Amino acid sequence: MTTASTAPGSVADLEAFAHHLADLSGNAILPLFRTRLEIEDKAEPGGARSFDPVTAGDRAAETVMREAITRAHPTHGIVGEEFGTEAPDAAYKWVLDPIDGTRAFILGLPVWGTLIGLTEKDRTILGLMNQPFTRERFWAAGGAAKYRGPDGCTSRLRTRACRALADAQLSSTHPELFAPGEEAEGFARIRQATRATRYGADCYAYCLVAAGHIDLVVEAGLKPYDVVALIPIVEAAGGVITTWDGGPATGGGRIIAAGDPELHRQACAVLAGR
Amino acid sequence: MTTASTAPGSVADLEAFAHHLADLSGNAILPLFRTRLEIEDKAEPGGARSFDPVTAGDRAAETVMREAITRAHPTHGIVGEEFGTEAPDAAYKWVLDPIDGTRAFILGLPVWGTLIGLTEKDRTILGLMNQPFTRERFWAAGGAAKYRGPDGCTSRLRTRACRALADAQLSSTHPELFAPGEEAEGFARIRQATRATRYGADCYAYCLVAAGHIDLVVEAGLKPYDVVALIPIVEAAGGVITTWDGGPATGGGRIIAAGDPELHRQACAVLAGR
Repeated sequence: MTTASTAPGSVADLEAFAHHLADLSGNAILPLFRTRLEIEDKAEPGGARSFDPVTAGDRAAETVMREAITRAHPTHGIVGEEFGTEAPDAAYKWVLDPIDGTRAFILGLPVWGTLIGLTEKDRTILGLMNQPFTRERFWAAGGAAKYRGPDGCTSRLRTRACRALADAQLSSTHPELFAPGEEAEGFARIRQATRATRYGADCYAYCLVAAGHIDLVVEAGLKPYDVVALIPIVEAAGGVITTWDGGPATGGGRIIAAGDPELHRQACAVLAGR
Repeated sequence: MTTASTAPGSVADLEAFAHHLADLSGNAILPLFRTRLEIEDKAEPGGARSFDPVTAGDRAAETVMREAITRAHPTHGIVGEEFGTEAPDAAYKWVLDPIDGTRAFILGLPVWGTLIGLTEKDRTILGLMNQPFTRERFWAAGGAAKYRGPDGCTSRLRTRACRALADAQLSSTHPELFAPGEEAEGFARIRQATRATRYGADCYAYCLVAAGHIDLVVEAGLKPYDVVALIPIVEAAGGVITTWDGGPATGGGRIIAAGDPELHRQACAVLAGR
């Protein structure tokens, strides 16, 4: 007996397919994580390296995911970090960032992740972040945000309440992510208004907003593939994710994510200098 | 038949005991990691919380380790972050930091660790860093630095060659770790001289120097228990770890660790403004 929830093309079917893509990409990337890179091997200081594990991992993972999508869903479009856009006018588009957090990856830190998003027209209907080293997966589809940890157990994600900026734990990937001028000034204001700031978490920070451990993420200069997969995870867990001026996050740029909608409202005002 | 290497009090015996302490502390801490903390539960913004998982984890882990040490090695001294010093004049002293990287712990990021060091007079003869969530362990005893990963396999740690500051990947826990004046100026110089800077890795950064993924760690304001356990891990892997002025790292303070001894020499000169 076939139920609607497992019919081909249903949200449950697409969710299962996203997990399949995460399995494939994890298998492609994990052997390259913590590959030793001898700096002395380079021809000259600052020169190009002959082997770049993060680029190799990015390409290997995006290639296997693209092949799987083309085989299973030939009418779907693809937007990938490494190999560009395919079928940009398709109703469904997969948005892929094989290794978000390349700096963390290069340094051997387990806070990078593989981002897999699916948009239907302008709406993101499915998002998944996979961390194959810690064996963690954060995802959302059909309005529910979920987490599977190293123990294999699945639980629901929900943000925590935090209404006051003075109580908020803020995360951002790097203090120098912001362009000098109003962007850097906006970040300086939000940093001063919050309880504490942590750097270096990349996509992990958004997932930990969804899990109720971080209250606020403020970043800039993001590409669509850096953020699309994270939108439904934050939203389905009860949070809000937009551009700094409250617009849709799907296009990237200056992004703010908050676990508490009231905190999001206050933080947007501070970023705008209001 | 008893061999010298497994005799009570031998380095191998103490190494096995350190792993026992790591198992005990991991079991005490892990249930508290990612404990949800509702900010709205507080009486007032910025006020004290009724339950602090990082303090609870710190205390629970240090208590079980102290009890085990007192039972197995009643003549050994103990220096712990939470419960102070016991038998300060003992020939052997265990130096314990149950949760190094409390900010990472609070935010749910898996880059904190439990530090277990053993000093014999002024020398650190054994060091271990345990990350129970990722199931990773970095340790050194008897001149060999080792790593056990999530797959249960053990390998030797060795730093990578990186002779030029311009090629070096630098790590530091937070850009605001440094006191205004010469300390902050020294860090600013080293940051500008290196290839790239990453924040937010705590004890993990030193272990990744030992593993050959990070070239340089520069920090300040460390306590002895923040660093003692990391000294033999960095040194036995081929690196150098000292204070900024080249003195022993055992007392904490301003600490520099480098995978390549030549890089350490250059970085110390830059920190000193030479």
